[in-house]
Amino acid sequence: MALIVQKYGGTSVGDAERIKSVARRITAAKEKGNQVVVVVSAMGDTTDNLVTMAHQLNPQPDAREMDALLATGEVVSSTLMTMALEAMGHKAISLNGIQAGIRTDTAHSRARITQVDPKRILEELERDFIVVVAGFQGVSDGMDVTTLGRGGSDTTAVALAISLKARRCEIYTDVEGVYTTDPNLIPEAKKLEEIGYEEMLELASYGAKVMHSRAVELAQLYGMPILVASSFSENPGTLIHGGIPMEIRNKVRGIAYDLDVAKVTVIGVPDKPGIAASIFEPLSTAGISVDTIVQNASINNLADLSFTVTRSDLDKAMRLIEPVARLIGAQKCVGDSSLAKVSIVGTGMQNTPGYAAKMFKAFYQEGVNIQLITTSEIRITCIITEKQVKKAVDALHRAFVMEKEA
Amino acid sequence: MALIVQKYGGTSVGDAERIKSVARRITAAKEKGNQVVVVVSAMGDTTDNLVTMAHQLNPQPDAREMDALLATGEVVSSTLMTMALEAMGHKAISLNGIQAGIRTDTAHSRARITQVDPKRILEELERDFIVVVAGFQGVSDGMDVTTLGRGGSDTTAVALAISLKARRCEIYTDVEGVYTTDPNLIPEAKKLEEIGYEEMLELASYGAKVMHSRAVELAQLYGMPILVASSFSENPGTLIHGGIPMEIRNKVRGIAYDLDVAKVTVIGVPDKPGIAASIFEPLSTAGISVDTIVQNASINNLADLSFTVTRSDLDKAMRLIEPVARLIGAQKCVGDSSLAKVSIVGTGMQNTPGYAAKMFKAFYQEGVNIQLITTSEIRITCIITEKQVKKAVDALHRAFVMEKEA
Repeated sequence: MALIVQKYGGTSVGDAERIKSVARRITAAKEKGNQVVVVVSAMGDTTDNLVTMAHQLNPQPDAREMDALLATGEVVSSTLMTMALEAMGHKAISLNGIQAGIRTDTAHSRARITQVDPKRILEELERDFIVVVAGFQGVSDGMDVTTLGRGGSDTTAVALAISLKARRCEIYTDVEGVYTTDPNLIPEAKKLEEIGYEEMLELASYGAKVMHSRAVELAQLYGMPILVASSFSENPGTLIHGGIPMEIRNKVRGIAYDLDVAKVTVIGVPDKPGIAASIFEPLSTAGISVDTIVQNASINNLADLSFTVTRSDLDKAMRLIEPVARLIGAQKCVGDSSLAKVSIVGTGMQNTPGYAAKMFKAFYQEGVNIQLITTSEIRITCIITEKQVKKAVDALHRAFVMEKEA
Repeated sequence: MALIVQKYGGTSVGDAERIKSVARRITAAKEKGNQVVVVVSAMGDTTDNLVTMAHQLNPQPDAREMDALLATGEVVSSTLMTMALEAMGHKAISLNGIQAGIRTDTAHSRARITQVDPKRILEELERDFIVVVAGFQGVSDGMDVTTLGRGGSDTTAVALAISLKARRCEIYTDVEGVYTTDPNLIPEAKKLEEIGYEEMLELASYGAKVMHSRAVELAQLYGMPILVASSFSENPGTLIHGGIPMEIRNKVRGIAYDLDVAKVTVIGVPDKPGIAASIFEPLSTAGISVDTIVQNASINNLADLSFTVTRSDLDKAMRLIEPVARLIGAQKCVGDSSLAKVSIVGTGMQNTPGYAAKMFKAFYQEGVNIQLITTSEIRITCIITEKQVKKAVDALHRAFVMEKEA
């Protein structure tokens, strides 16, 4: 008898029919003799609707109140799922974040799990119940309801799997698994049977929408295997784990892209100590997250400094940077909101030369112009213009994924 | 500085505009220097919608799950109300049933409050916050969410007012107060400035929809005054309290009616000991609530026994009673679902003869046929046919309310 944790996202529990269909999958896992803990997200548009209602009453709602409001969405889906399981003749019980023992810090809207106290869950499993936990939420030491922010329900599922010593954490969603690249953009994209944690993290951070990197990081830390699969089919999905064999490691695993990229370039920055700090401090204070930063070599003691932000932050970043640029004697600031980043990811790239050259050559052959380049040990990312994304991803997919199989 | 508890019903918080309008009333009370605790119901149709969703998944949803589901409705309205108060520049905080310290037994869907631990509320009041409590809900010793059943939010408000030693409990609703009878039926109905607890209880139990009797009973037990008033106007409303002066007591206070009445008559019941028990035991086991019971004098050792149930219980009651009737040798069973009860209520009736005679005379003059009669110390109730309700209430209102003023 194994203990498994299954998580179902908002689309998978979007209406009564889908809840019933998911309930049948859960009962199948239970009838195989497993102990089953289920984590559910809020139904479909519930969270968006609650946010809209809140903003009708207060343009800047308090984070504590917002958390208490939004957490109701997952409570609703967890109770409805439990009722569906009971209608199928199974013993089931819903638990909210407090009851499930998900303790967090007090950082409302982006709380971190500090501890899981699985006492109640274990008691209910002992009584042979299927336990349905409301995802995305926890409770602070002061008994206030908190939410975990983006990727919250995935994080709930992985944290429960770890603290319950589950065999694995199964994430059911509206895609079939992790692909070599976005199958909506490139129909030739292939589903991966398995992928390592680091590769998945780079794919997730650089645009793949399958899972939020936070839950993957947590799974990596404790070595918890994650299965990502479709809740609408019986196909096998992708297993994210740490034990990828040597042979398979020697590959580019996938190609990620992200369209939410804008660039700010400060031209003619005097090459003096402290200049970078004076530029980035006001951005940090304003809560603007800066991604790629590139500064070219100084010519006549003047350098050009570029960095990327999300598109929604571009205007604010420009307003903050322009006075700073004048102050430090830079020539001017230029903003560009129509950019994208395209990355190749794979542990096979580590210590293996030639990947960057092959990537740049593929871009050159297709006439894709590279604006900025950044790399990690297992990733190479190019910032390009949005219009060339499809051409770029297609070229990389052919060069690194298709070719390899031939 | 006084501490007041205000409760707003589902219609009063039905949409964003109404929430804002109620928030302005709350801030006005706060700005007068009061400490304010607010109790809110779920918005408009929320509870009905949740029930519908539950029944799509399970025709007989588990009571524990139903409670967890329904309690989200009041959490949503309490957080939205708090956001509205904050948008108006006030410090406010929402508390769910657990946080507000509403401890109950484990009778899901109709839990009784066992204890209120107002520690958190008092702390927040001390910090000068307006405290917005989600009504209708509590928590059991096992940390499960419970709901209080019908009249639940009113009961939450009264219980909090008592445990916080509030000056009074204000119930804001979609009517202007307590009337001599239903103003929708009888336009001449008059709003009462005040009414005693017992009279209010009889009116509530016998059909007046203003407040559920449970909350009034609780208020009576602790002598907590309740103001019932409209959340849409500034009119003064009706004060329910224990200190009604002698002079005012000597009156019929109001006329209640209830259309949800069905009658079962068992004809030709042999007059033997134990017969009544054999009839009512199966009803009690099936959870059918029996209201009025009347047995006429026995002729030739055969009696007719009638009792009333709600209309939705009639079919079930008939199915249970028919075999019992055969077993005990009764002649037959007859059901009638088109009945109503009409009552006159007033402590003035106590020890004062003539009220019943006057009631029956008024009915006789209008041609209203009385099927059953029951009385309490301060109430006389007649069961009549549904079609004659308006005529009957009008006759009683003229005889007892209008005449008295002339």
